[in-house]
Amino acid sequence: MLSIVILGTGTIAKHLVGALSKVKEVRLAQVVGRNQEQLLWFSGFAPISTDFKAIMDADIYLIAVKDDAIVEVSRHIFDKKGIVAHVSGATPMNSLPMENRGVFYPLQSFTEGRPLDFRTIPFCIEAQKEDAAETLKVLAGYLSDSVSDVDSQQRKKLHLAAMYVNNFSNYLYGVGEKLCEEEGLPFDLLKPLILETAEKIQVMSPKEAQTGPARRGDKKTMKAHLALLHDKKQIELYKLFSEAIKKVYEEKL
Amino acid sequence: MLSIVILGTGTIAKHLVGALSKVKEVRLAQVVGRNQEQLLWFSGFAPISTDFKAIMDADIYLIAVKDDAIVEVSRHIFDKKGIVAHVSGATPMNSLPMENRGVFYPLQSFTEGRPLDFRTIPFCIEAQKEDAAETLKVLAGYLSDSVSDVDSQQRKKLHLAAMYVNNFSNYLYGVGEKLCEEEGLPFDLLKPLILETAEKIQVMSPKEAQTGPARRGDKKTMKAHLALLHDKKQIELYKLFSEAIKKVYEEKL
Repeated sequence: MLSIVILGTGTIAKHLVGALSKVKEVRLAQVVGRNQEQLLWFSGFAPISTDFKAIMDADIYLIAVKDDAIVEVSRHIFDKKGIVAHVSGATPMNSLPMENRGVFYPLQSFTEGRPLDFRTIPFCIEAQKEDAAETLKVLAGYLSDSVSDVDSQQRKKLHLAAMYVNNFSNYLYGVGEKLCEEEGLPFDLLKPLILETAEKIQVMSPKEAQTGPARRGDKKTMKAHLALLHDKKQIELYKLFSEAIKKVYEEKL
Repeated sequence: MLSIVILGTGTIAKHLVGALSKVKEVRLAQVVGRNQEQLLWFSGFAPISTDFKAIMDADIYLIAVKDDAIVEVSRHIFDKKGIVAHVSGATPMNSLPMENRGVFYPLQSFTEGRPLDFRTIPFCIEAQKEDAAETLKVLAGYLSDSVSDVDSQQRKKLHLAAMYVNNFSNYLYGVGEKLCEEEGLPFDLLKPLILETAEKIQVMSPKEAQTGPARRGDKKTMKAHLALLHDKKQIELYKLFSEAIKKVYEEKL
């Protein structure tokens, strides 16, 4: 039985507590956070407290707060014996001041109130001590089928990669929505294509999956597309992507 | 019963024939194409021919060839009485020389050998004559639950929108893969995030769904990310997207 204290009351904390509450090998010892209103959400799952001086003893402390509050929160558990791990993609492990430190990073985009299948979420684990890494991996394994050793340098890069595939793709969806609206068409028309593009990549490499005029070097279509655009950012993106895609397939030749 | 002749033997032709063969109200009268080898694939579904001078009579002729071959192929059926429709997103309807012309455009990314659920594919329909539009919509309705009137101007814009959400997103997946490879990490780590990003957009607007440092205006993280990048195109994309995303949320304030 692993006892866990969660520090933080945000979206990731909620997802983690929801998932951990279903694991019979886990005991949620406490959820601690400043935000009393948010904290109430957790009261059905664990004892709650707003007092960072009254943190209970546990095997693992998971810090699930904003990146710039991690260090401050960690000070309250400096003297604890358990493993202290944050759940951040962008924060190095050694930001934590204690010796028994680690990282428990679920690589996924968490949305408040939107359920996720935890078994598919990749958990990226790092720890200062070998036995702490093992324990964090056991905990991750209770939740997910995908558990990996990922050090701070790798995680930083992975978090950056996540910007491209998540944040930037989402912005492109927004451009698609805007272009539909300009023609009085519903964004719904693009949704099956968006889904298929993401599903295809589960079984094919992006290089294989690439289609379109830039890959074919179809200058006529690209010129016609550019003539339809007015927004400066949309034009810049179109040109930059077309060049970049073209380059990938020129290299192949 | 609608009789259909398919002109072309490429990926879309195969998908269409596969789907149409399951519709009891449809008779596949013939598949015609120059490529004898590809044509053999169709022999289990319909009579096949390489002879464009021996095209049978039918209610609807679907031209499923490369964009720049549509006009040439259409000449062979100039004198037919049935409806002649191409399946292209980028080609105006009036590229077709006959009077009884139309467009039967399935907005999806088709991959050879990869099955798709046709019921979710948006079919964008246009026709010169009212009754031809009705007939094409009936045909589309046999295959899909999503059938819309979309004129040539709208379709052109929709096809452009598809570049952003499909071609360009796919390129971003490739950047993610590259960044993983640089750290010796499997691209698999990003796949659940890619899928969730696309699934989230099925029920939320891109604007709501947007997360990350650019939306938050988190300059520290953006600076740290840029310091990790070496590839010129990746840097350009990072900067362009960050500015563009920032702008969306500034406008909101």
